[in-house]
Amino acid sequence: MKRTKLLIPGPVELDSEVLLAMARPLMGHRTPDFEEILQDCWRLLREVYQTRNDVAIITGSGTSAMEAALASVVKEGDEVVSITGGKFGERLAEIAAAFGAKVKKVEVEWGGTFSLEEVERAVAESNAVAVTLTHNETSTGVLHDASAIGRLAREYDLLFIADCITSVGGDEVRTDEWGIDLCITGSQKCLAAPPGLGFVAVSERAWEVIENNPGKRAYYLDLSRYRKALEKGTTPYTPSVSLIYGLHAALRKIEEETLEARIRRHRRLARATREAARAMNLELFAAEECASNTVTAIKIPPHLSDDDVRGALKREHGMLVAGGQAQLKGKIFRIGHMGNVTFAELVQVLAALELVLKKAGHDLELGAGVAAAQEAFSD
Amino acid sequence: MKRTKLLIPGPVELDSEVLLAMARPLMGHRTPDFEEILQDCWRLLREVYQTRNDVAIITGSGTSAMEAALASVVKEGDEVVSITGGKFGERLAEIAAAFGAKVKKVEVEWGGTFSLEEVERAVAESNAVAVTLTHNETSTGVLHDASAIGRLAREYDLLFIADCITSVGGDEVRTDEWGIDLCITGSQKCLAAPPGLGFVAVSERAWEVIENNPGKRAYYLDLSRYRKALEKGTTPYTPSVSLIYGLHAALRKIEEETLEARIRRHRRLARATREAARAMNLELFAAEECASNTVTAIKIPPHLSDDDVRGALKREHGMLVAGGQAQLKGKIFRIGHMGNVTFAELVQVLAALELVLKKAGHDLELGAGVAAAQEAFSD
Repeated sequence: MKRTKLLIPGPVELDSEVLLAMARPLMGHRTPDFEEILQDCWRLLREVYQTRNDVAIITGSGTSAMEAALASVVKEGDEVVSITGGKFGERLAEIAAAFGAKVKKVEVEWGGTFSLEEVERAVAESNAVAVTLTHNETSTGVLHDASAIGRLAREYDLLFIADCITSVGGDEVRTDEWGIDLCITGSQKCLAAPPGLGFVAVSERAWEVIENNPGKRAYYLDLSRYRKALEKGTTPYTPSVSLIYGLHAALRKIEEETLEARIRRHRRLARATREAARAMNLELFAAEECASNTVTAIKIPPHLSDDDVRGALKREHGMLVAGGQAQLKGKIFRIGHMGNVTFAELVQVLAALELVLKKAGHDLELGAGVAAAQEAFSD
Repeated sequence: MKRTKLLIPGPVELDSEVLLAMARPLMGHRTPDFEEILQDCWRLLREVYQTRNDVAIITGSGTSAMEAALASVVKEGDEVVSITGGKFGERLAEIAAAFGAKVKKVEVEWGGTFSLEEVERAVAESNAVAVTLTHNETSTGVLHDASAIGRLAREYDLLFIADCITSVGGDEVRTDEWGIDLCITGSQKCLAAPPGLGFVAVSERAWEVIENNPGKRAYYLDLSRYRKALEKGTTPYTPSVSLIYGLHAALRKIEEETLEARIRRHRRLARATREAARAMNLELFAAEECASNTVTAIKIPPHLSDDDVRGALKREHGMLVAGGQAQLKGKIFRIGHMGNVTFAELVQVLAALELVLKKAGHDLELGAGVAAAQEAFSD
């Protein structure tokens, strides 16, 4: 069976070093040898997070880290302002509600970004204890301005909870400078580590709330347990030793590339993808001024189906790109260019895309998309 | 660096096939190819669980599965009867309390098992909605009679929540026959899969409670989300694809060995370990009638230290056995003989143990323990 190449917004393709790291025999999880690896993961995570805060390493999907952040700070009846505008923005609001919070949503049109005035109004009119934002909204391909929400949160003395699952390690996330109190990410996105680990960088302000939250409904996902363990250089529960091996290898690759070069690469790939799409007579879903640097959402032309595009890419070229989610099912497709994707790999999918579009009767000139991408990339 | 061999009660040593399975490139987690692997994992899990119930596969440590079970069925103010008697029995009670339950503990002496009359009294005197039991208490090396609690739970119409983390796949766990409504296990114990996956087999009775629990404080760990996904042959959140590969390889090894032979092997290894300990003039911590078949707890002789035994085993023989936990720290050590441990491997640690005990001045005849183990194993 020919393998399908992943160009979805996570899980992303793993480097061989990362894959092979997972094949290493297990160590005891409470031994100095393993704790040395954990310490190095923490050091490297703080670098990609651009933070001096503690980073909790949770064995679980990205959503487990979202739940850990919210369940640890929120108690029954607390007000939370949630900026939505996509599937993952909605998820933060849903989790807050599941833990008994009264959620005030600031609904953002899918594909666009928030109005700061509107967010400020919602905050001013509420007794919110926290504001939530999805920094990079994977479902719509939108990057929101987290620094603006950080300033607002400070001004109104709220906790700022940001889902940076598809930005940390691929785009600029200045956790400390922007004032993100609970900064969430996952392993299988821009970090290019295997899926199954979630992370939360927690500020001192947030720790204070967490330690003094009597109404907390959490145990495995109670961040205070991670802090206690962190102080002893370990994790509160048996971590997935194999995934930590993979994470460590992935983080070392990031260090080698340098975060700066990595972010620049992601931005150039995103620009190249957008220019290629335009040159193929395709319409981008997200507005240019808030387009994501790690995933690009493209409208499926009205005369074509999801299968004409995604089905054909998979069948004929062995390439998996993502479909639309929720109300965007069948209306858009999304190319993930996060993790270790190179320009050469991006060109593969762009060239294949031209072929399947042409075959399905879409009006385009073969090669125009690839040329536009080359042009944009060499800028 | 010489590798240390794990003889702790999890994580256990993984077979090469399992390790190498994790090095396989990732598949998209929403693709038919991956869903085929998931389906086969579910089939094989139902076999080791001896159940027809759905089995939720959670990316997380064993404790995440404990939390999923409790958080999904319990709401603020519910009464729960918890049979304790060890670190993990206590943990179930702590989780129930963390989610707002009023917990009535039936405290069992560490190293012994419960009195059924006492449990029945606690149940009869309460308005409990659930009773919790740790089937195989890893911290004390005790196996409790889950079938008796299952009958009681049926009689009083309670949900029976059993932590079978160190029994499923190594000892008899008749989920359906014993009436376990929420049967919890983890990947890195008797299943000999990598750490990082938790499982809950859920009965129809339990699903009804879960679907009608308005006070549920859960999202990532809300089992009803796993059921909805199960019906579509998938998981609710991005699973750890690499760990699922490892799990699948591990479950296929169990199928090859057959569950019956695997349980018999565990029981013979446990008997051999106990007889060897006695022949080395060591005292067992758990009473014989409730001794675990997957882990053996042995008292450290009063004239020796933890380092004389465990430290020396690691330094001189490269073997890691577990220490005591909580109030048993420094008082016992525990040999894990779960997963794929063979008699030959057990003999290694027994022979090494004789050497380190002798060296530390313990009174024993070299070879007596090994001979007793051989005798017991060949019965």
